[in-house]
Amino acid sequence: MRTINWSDNGHIILTDQTKLPKECATIECNDVDTLAEAIRSLRVRGAPALGVAGGFGIALAAQTSRARSQRDLIRDIEHAAEVLRNTRPTAVNLFWGIERVLKKTKTGRSVHQMKELALEEARKMADEDVEICKRIGEHGAKLLEDGDVIMTYCNAGRMACVDWGTAIGVIRSAIGQGKRIKVIACETRPLNQGSRITAWELLQDDVQVILITDNMVGHVVKSGMADKIIVGADRIVEDAVFNKIGTYTLSIIAKEHKIPFYVAAPMSTFDFEKRAADIEIEERSPQELKYFGDEQIAPLEVEVYNPAFDATPMENITAIITENGVFHPPFSFKDIRGKES
Amino acid sequence: MRTINWSDNGHIILTDQTKLPKECATIECNDVDTLAEAIRSLRVRGAPALGVAGGFGIALAAQTSRARSQRDLIRDIEHAAEVLRNTRPTAVNLFWGIERVLKKTKTGRSVHQMKELALEEARKMADEDVEICKRIGEHGAKLLEDGDVIMTYCNAGRMACVDWGTAIGVIRSAIGQGKRIKVIACETRPLNQGSRITAWELLQDDVQVILITDNMVGHVVKSGMADKIIVGADRIVEDAVFNKIGTYTLSIIAKEHKIPFYVAAPMSTFDFEKRAADIEIEERSPQELKYFGDEQIAPLEVEVYNPAFDATPMENITAIITENGVFHPPFSFKDIRGKES
Repeated sequence: MRTINWSDNGHIILTDQTKLPKECATIECNDVDTLAEAIRSLRVRGAPALGVAGGFGIALAAQTSRARSQRDLIRDIEHAAEVLRNTRPTAVNLFWGIERVLKKTKTGRSVHQMKELALEEARKMADEDVEICKRIGEHGAKLLEDGDVIMTYCNAGRMACVDWGTAIGVIRSAIGQGKRIKVIACETRPLNQGSRITAWELLQDDVQVILITDNMVGHVVKSGMADKIIVGADRIVEDAVFNKIGTYTLSIIAKEHKIPFYVAAPMSTFDFEKRAADIEIEERSPQELKYFGDEQIAPLEVEVYNPAFDATPMENITAIITENGVFHPPFSFKDIRGKES
Repeated sequence: MRTINWSDNGHIILTDQTKLPKECATIECNDVDTLAEAIRSLRVRGAPALGVAGGFGIALAAQTSRARSQRDLIRDIEHAAEVLRNTRPTAVNLFWGIERVLKKTKTGRSVHQMKELALEEARKMADEDVEICKRIGEHGAKLLEDGDVIMTYCNAGRMACVDWGTAIGVIRSAIGQGKRIKVIACETRPLNQGSRITAWELLQDDVQVILITDNMVGHVVKSGMADKIIVGADRIVEDAVFNKIGTYTLSIIAKEHKIPFYVAAPMSTFDFEKRAADIEIEERSPQELKYFGDEQIAPLEVEVYNPAFDATPMENITAIITENGVFHPPFSFKDIRGKES
């Protein structure tokens, strides 16, 4: 089952990740506002999945538009793009997905053709995402050995993509090759994507998984329980990898204990134009640290700092695994860009 | 108000820390089983508070015993000691508090005198604990400068002691000297003593506190938001400090970014007989990672690793702050032991 897809009756269908692990429910988005809410509330999340969500969002806006002229249709899809961009202002893949479908749609020569092109392009992006993850998996699996215990962080599995996954895709591919792999999942505060989603995903696939809290990483790595760490990425710039808050802490632990620290991500995650200092990190609601569901877990009047991402400098990274191969340090952006296609 | 005390009607009165921050409720323990449950469920926790809880526990067993002979009274208090020791098998202070009151009680020459001595000794321990924390605070405050932002972990405040606190005691003493100090509290998974108790305690004292999740420590320290880290300790052996799981991770971050990492603890926390390899780390229930209150936060069938403590090697520690002064590396256990009394 795909995390995000186009339904037979012409809507976007999503797995609602906020319901996991208690329930694996899907929601149908019949309009862009419903999709925007789903992105904002992290019902759909993960860099690759957000790219496809952005693409399908434009397709949905085109399909449901009542415009009779090409100009009116463009106005409608531009409006949808604006609504969607505002949901997660630092999500580079979301912007990329929106732009790609917008651009393609505009090449249509009639309202009808534009609607067709929008959906075709969005569907193509979804198919490509599955294909790309499989290729990331194949390249990355070569780095894993039979018997390895792999620590992973947040969710970089099929729920973060259309299918297969990036960091977890590498693990799935290695297992597919017959290697025995065990996984340590960090719960990933404050939204527990590790315990709620990664642990659930791996159990669905019958992969042995051990759940720990994020603060245990030092102790666990020092104890020799983890052989390698693999994480995903939200944005890769020349001097740093942006990923879920806590990734940087993990990279320091890996460095201290000399275990490999791998990043698995599609080429679309690279931002060749920017450096770490240019990126503003999204801060999320203080409520995420004050409540867990309905449970109050902190004084309501406390000041909270809640950045969603952090930046791991390139020197802490052993290799970056992409669909176009594995890049090793020193990471030359010129060479990596040359491998784009 | 003291965290643990002897009530006017002859019972132990405790702040129920599991109810914080929603409610600051107390519970009265009329018998040893109620106290044992309170320790097991972490209604009372923190190394110094557990020492006093152990002492009061023996006093309560003596006071409520119906024994008519000294031999029968000793049998009753030995039984209570056994029940209490089984609640947190690695808590060195608990054992120390139990032993101290047991020993004193046995010097009594009548059942009546034994009962009196038990209560007197337990009360003396509680008073001493407050005094010791104040002295730790005074010594430690010299290490803090006006304007410092101090990161702390778990709860090493008055709730972990009878009053004042160890790590937070140092901060309170520095503030008492007129220094402006801001605190960063890490939530401390899985039981959130940082968000539930430390943040609450500091707000009660009008100290400015910023709450973060444990995985943010790397990003926050790298960003220059924290000048120093101060934590408490559960047990200090020759080659390591045992403290709440996650302390080791924090110490690596401090080392990486060259900020001081201080441990504040009473002399009773030192275990001069053992080394890190001799200590078995208490593992707590997997349920702590599967639920938050009634909220399910992980698949129920997932394997969980849930150690309560970790060991921070001495080389990661900038100084140990005790009531007898501040010790600097290389930490000579011969010298530190010489300062006992």
